[in-house]
Amino acid sequence: MLIMGVDPGTAITGFGLVKYNGSRFTLVDCGCIRTSPDTPLSGRLHFLYRELVDIISRHNPEQFAVEELFFNKNAKTALAVGHARGVAMLAAASSGLPVFEYTPLQVKQSVAGFGRAEKTQVQFMVKTILALPAVPAPDDVADALAVAICHGHLNSWVRKLK
Amino acid sequence: MLIMGVDPGTAITGFGLVKYNGSRFTLVDCGCIRTSPDTPLSGRLHFLYRELVDIISRHNPEQFAVEELFFNKNAKTALAVGHARGVAMLAAASSGLPVFEYTPLQVKQSVAGFGRAEKTQVQFMVKTILALPAVPAPDDVADALAVAICHGHLNSWVRKLK
Repeated sequence: MLIMGVDPGTAITGFGLVKYNGSRFTLVDCGCIRTSPDTPLSGRLHFLYRELVDIISRHNPEQFAVEELFFNKNAKTALAVGHARGVAMLAAASSGLPVFEYTPLQVKQSVAGFGRAEKTQVQFMVKTILALPAVPAPDDVADALAVAICHGHLNSWVRKLK
Repeated sequence: MLIMGVDPGTAITGFGLVKYNGSRFTLVDCGCIRTSPDTPLSGRLHFLYRELVDIISRHNPEQFAVEELFFNKNAKTALAVGHARGVAMLAAASSGLPVFEYTPLQVKQSVAGFGRAEKTQVQFMVKTILALPAVPAPDDVADALAVAICHGHLNSWVRKLK
């Protein structure tokens, strides 16, 4: 199964595509989409949308995973991330991809083995699980791969329980 | 000039199309797009996007206006509105429409004449300016028409100043 994970942001969106055969994950592609702060917001969102639809049509993933976000304080950041997250989910939905959302706790538990894992521990496990030479950078790429791995794990557990 | 204003939300998005000839506004169309809470978020955003693109292609407006939002407290609401707002701006941008953003202060000042106007005063002025038999309901529709009127006013002032 080919899974696409995304960590959305207006300025930078990380994406990662991983193949999961039920026991092993393999990296297919990863990277990030950057938009210029000199471009109006509508133009940045349009660019992000086109890039995501392009990546989806190039790799043809079967499922799409994105983190559920919780903001306690910064409503301005929440609004900005919401713009990009809405556009990312739309890119998946308009490409016919089922979209799965996971809480940060679920991502940490399924990737690092425990819910209180530090960000660096999750990133180290992404590197280990995918047998990469180094931790993927920037963080947005590692986070996108982490949510894709999370989906692979949880989805296969759900199937086994059925 | 045909202007489309939008008040975005995941559950309900108001839209309004007004014609402005430099001195008078005329209502062309208005209404709201509702999405079902039983549908997953990605599906709701996809529905909203298709409806907005459909309205744009049907009326062919020249410009698109949306309110800039400020959230002081509720980050959860900000994220939810961000999803819909991002998708609405994308619908305009992908249709080739220029997108304009106005602060609540600008909307109040240009529609009701003063920045501290109450919501009901703005709605009453929308009714008066467009010579409608009643205040448009729900609020989302009145707000969408208000931001379209704001754009008409401010845009024509900007032109006169040039």
